[in-house]
Amino acid sequence: MKKIEHIGIAVKDIEKSNSLFKALFGEDHYKIEDVESEGVKTSFFKCGPNKIELLQATNEDSPIAKFIEKKGEGMHHIAFAVDDIEQEIERLTKEGFTMIHKKPKQGADNKLIAFLHPKSTNGVLIELCQDIKD
Amino acid sequence: MKKIEHIGIAVKDIEKSNSLFKALFGEDHYKIEDVESEGVKTSFFKCGPNKIELLQATNEDSPIAKFIEKKGEGMHHIAFAVDDIEQEIERLTKEGFTMIHKKPKQGADNKLIAFLHPKSTNGVLIELCQDIKD
Repeated sequence: MKKIEHIGIAVKDIEKSNSLFKALFGEDHYKIEDVESEGVKTSFFKCGPNKIELLQATNEDSPIAKFIEKKGEGMHHIAFAVDDIEQEIERLTKEGFTMIHKKPKQGADNKLIAFLHPKSTNGVLIELCQDIKD
Repeated sequence: MKKIEHIGIAVKDIEKSNSLFKALFGEDHYKIEDVESEGVKTSFFKCGPNKIELLQATNEDSPIAKFIEKKGEGMHHIAFAVDDIEQEIERLTKEGFTMIHKKPKQGADNKLIAFLHPKSTNGVLIELCQDIKD
């Protein structure tokens, strides 16, 4: 794990939250992206070597809609940057962690991603992500 | 805001969570610290430029005990590193954010800290922290 790549924050109204985080950082988001397969709109803010990803559900079956229904708005996941996601999935599986994704899948922001099940990580939803080389 | 300084994670059993995060990072914590004024035991892990802070309550009035009772174990707060915490408190107050601490206070890991109220930040508990210069 090289660093915290980003923190995902579940929000109800991404326009409102964009204004709020722009005021917080004193700088606007650098990117918005729809991830249709996950039923989310995303918005990314830079903070030095790290990012904040705001997530708004685009339909009621979206994992973000379910999260907000259960826990309210707030921190949804931590994503760690890794060099080799397949190797890291193998290592963590051997360590006894439960992977939601046993194979990497395409995520937002040009990444390969895989999530660990929060039951095996103290209730924290953890994402691994690796840059896709062009 | 220079970077994510650390993510605070509320845990029930810090010994058990230390083993879990050691397995996750492939590296042990570098520090443990009791913060009596907050009623918490802390344990710090490095992850590149960032840290993970595990927090276990040491009494039932601790904010961490109350958090776990309400929401369960998991992500508790995001701390952002700032150069000048007093200036940042002033800027954020002018932007309309509600500070829990209007003046910086001594925190764990040799920092001056101040928290923003999560009601003004989309349900996310945000900490500002500045290194204490020796």
